[in-house]
Amino acid sequence: MRKIAIDIMGGDNAPAEILAGALSFAKDNPEVKLYLVGLEENFKDIDIPSNCEKVITNDFLPMDIKPTEAVRRRNSTMYLSCKLVKDGIADGVVSAGNTGALLACATFVVGRIKGIDRPTLAVPIPSSNGFCVMADAGANIDVKPSNLLQFGIMAVEYAKILGKENPKIGLLNVGTEDNKGTEREKEAFAMLKNVFKDQFIGNIEGNDINTGKVDVVIADGFAGNVAMKTMEGVAKLITGLIKNETKKNIVSILGALLMKPVFNKLKEKVDPRKYGGTFFIGVKGVVVKAHGNSDRIAIYNALKVASKGIEEELPEKIRGAIENVWNSRNSRN
Amino acid sequence: MRKIAIDIMGGDNAPAEILAGALSFAKDNPEVKLYLVGLEENFKDIDIPSNCEKVITNDFLPMDIKPTEAVRRRNSTMYLSCKLVKDGIADGVVSAGNTGALLACATFVVGRIKGIDRPTLAVPIPSSNGFCVMADAGANIDVKPSNLLQFGIMAVEYAKILGKENPKIGLLNVGTEDNKGTEREKEAFAMLKNVFKDQFIGNIEGNDINTGKVDVVIADGFAGNVAMKTMEGVAKLITGLIKNETKKNIVSILGALLMKPVFNKLKEKVDPRKYGGTFFIGVKGVVVKAHGNSDRIAIYNALKVASKGIEEELPEKIRGAIENVWNSRNSRN
Repeated sequence: MRKIAIDIMGGDNAPAEILAGALSFAKDNPEVKLYLVGLEENFKDIDIPSNCEKVITNDFLPMDIKPTEAVRRRNSTMYLSCKLVKDGIADGVVSAGNTGALLACATFVVGRIKGIDRPTLAVPIPSSNGFCVMADAGANIDVKPSNLLQFGIMAVEYAKILGKENPKIGLLNVGTEDNKGTEREKEAFAMLKNVFKDQFIGNIEGNDINTGKVDVVIADGFAGNVAMKTMEGVAKLITGLIKNETKKNIVSILGALLMKPVFNKLKEKVDPRKYGGTFFIGVKGVVVKAHGNSDRIAIYNALKVASKGIEEELPEKIRGAIENVWNSRNSRN
Repeated sequence: MRKIAIDIMGGDNAPAEILAGALSFAKDNPEVKLYLVGLEENFKDIDIPSNCEKVITNDFLPMDIKPTEAVRRRNSTMYLSCKLVKDGIADGVVSAGNTGALLACATFVVGRIKGIDRPTLAVPIPSSNGFCVMADAGANIDVKPSNLLQFGIMAVEYAKILGKENPKIGLLNVGTEDNKGTEREKEAFAMLKNVFKDQFIGNIEGNDINTGKVDVVIADGFAGNVAMKTMEGVAKLITGLIKNETKKNIVSILGALLMKPVFNKLKEKVDPRKYGGTFFIGVKGVVVKAHGNSDRIAIYNALKVASKGIEEELPEKIRGAIENVWNSRNSRN
C-alpha cells in the first residue's frame, strides 16, 4: 500500500483547499493511504475516510518562512510530514508550502541519497514532442559543475519514468558550441560527456528547450528558473495579444469561435500545471512540491504525481543510477 | 551628416545580402554616408552610389572567430569598420559578424566610455505595453554587481531614446522578494536602489518581463540570453501547435482564415527582428550588432537603428548619465 503524508497547512489556500483535494483523492484511490498532517481545528466536523489518518500538531510554517528556520520548527505540519517519510511511516510527502522550506526539510529531514550533494527541483516542460524535464528549475541557484552532472543523472531517471526510453540530454547555455559559457558550464560539459557519451548532445540555447531537440535540460537553478517563468510570461503575452486583437473585429471573433477547440488544445498542451506538482529529486523518499496557490484540483494532481513516484520507485532508481556512475568511474581508476 | 561603417564580410549571408541591404539603405537615405568595408572582389561590377565610399582590405573574420583573435587581425573588415569610428571618420558601425568578436572590437578598438567597465548588449523585448529593454542580453556572462548597475544606467538611456519617459527598472531574479538571488543579485539590488530610488521597482521574475511591469530588465548576460532565446522558442512552440491543431479540422481552418489579420498583428508585435539590430552600449560610438543570419532587409533595419542611435547621440547620453551618477556619489561623500 502506498502511503503519502500531506501538509494540510501549506499553501496560499490552506487548509480548506488542501484538505478538500486530499479527501477527494483519498475517495478515488482507496489503495493509497493518506496521513493528513494538520492542526486540530482543521478537522472539525470533517468525516475522515478509512484510508486517511489524522496527524495532529500545533505549529505550521508561514509562506515567507526562511529555510533555516523551517528545519528548526519541528512541530510544524511541513516538518512532521517529512518526518513521517524519514521514519518510514509514509513513502512520500506533498506540500504546497514555501519552496525553500520544503527543500530544506526534504534535504535535512527526509535526507539525501548517498552521492547526491544537492537535491533538485525537476520540472516537465511542454515541448513540441510532448515534454522535456528541466533540472534544476530553481531550487539551487548557486551550483558547481558536479551539481549539474548530478542534476542530469536525476533528471534522466525522472524522464524515463515519464516515458522517455533513452532521453537525450542538453546543457542550457548561451550558445551551442562546445566551449560556451562560464568555467562552470565548460567543466560540466566535460563531465556530462564523460558519463553520458552520445546521449549528451551538448550545449543548447533557450530556444531549443521546447523544440523536442532534447528530453532533459540541465541548468543551474537561476537560469532554469528564469527560463521556466519566462515561458509562462510569453505564453500569457501571446494569448493576451490574440484576445485583444480578436475583440477589435466581428470577423475575428467569429474566427476565434470556430477555432475554440484549437485554443483549448493549446491551453491543455502548454499548461504547466497539468503535472500538478514537481518532484524534489535526490532525497530518500518521494517529495512533491505543489504550487503555492494550489486549489483542490492541483492538490489532487500533486497527490497523483506523488503516488506515481512511489509506484515507480523514483528514489530507488536515482540511488541505482548514482551508484552506477560511481562504480563505472571507480572501475576505470 | 551621419556616417556609418558597414562590415560587408560579416554574417552568414555575406557579402551579397549585406551589400544589397547597404545599397538599398543608401539609396533611401541620401543624407547618410556609408563606408562599405570589404574585399576588392565584393565590389566587382557594382555601381557605388555617391553617398557611399568603398574601404578595401584583404582580410575578414570567420563566423567562429575567437574574440581574442578578432582584436589581433587589424586588417579585417570588422576591425577596420570599428577603426573608422575610433578615428572619428564614422559615427557608427554595423556588423552581422560574430558577437564576441564585435564586442571585443567595440571595447578595444572603438573604446569604452569612462566609468563603464563592460559594454552591454541591450535588446528591446516585446511586452504587453509595447517593449522593454533588456541588458545584458548575452555579451557578458560572468558579471559583478557593479556591472549590473552599469547595465541599468545604460539601458535606461536607451529606453528613453525609444520613447519611455521615466523608465521603471527591474532586476531579473528567481523571486520578487528583496533578498532573493545569489550574493551578486543582493549587492546589485542595494546599488540599484541607491542610484535609482523609486524608479527601481525591485526584483522581477521571468514571467514579469513581458507584462509591462517594467521598462528596463537588468540581467547578467547568461540569464538574460537564456530568457531572450526562451521567448523565441516558446513563441515558435505556440504558433506551431496552433498550426498543427488547425490543420486537423476544416472548421478550424476557416476560423484561422478569418483570424488572419489577428495572427499577422501578433507576428508583427512579437517579432524580435523588428528593431533590426541591437546596440552594444557603453562604447565611444554607435555599434550595432545585426543578427548573424541577417538578410538585406535585416541589414537595412540595422542601418536604420545605427542612424537613429547617432541622431539621438546615444553614446553622449550614456556618458552624461554615468557622470551624473559619479558626481552625485562624490557630492555625498
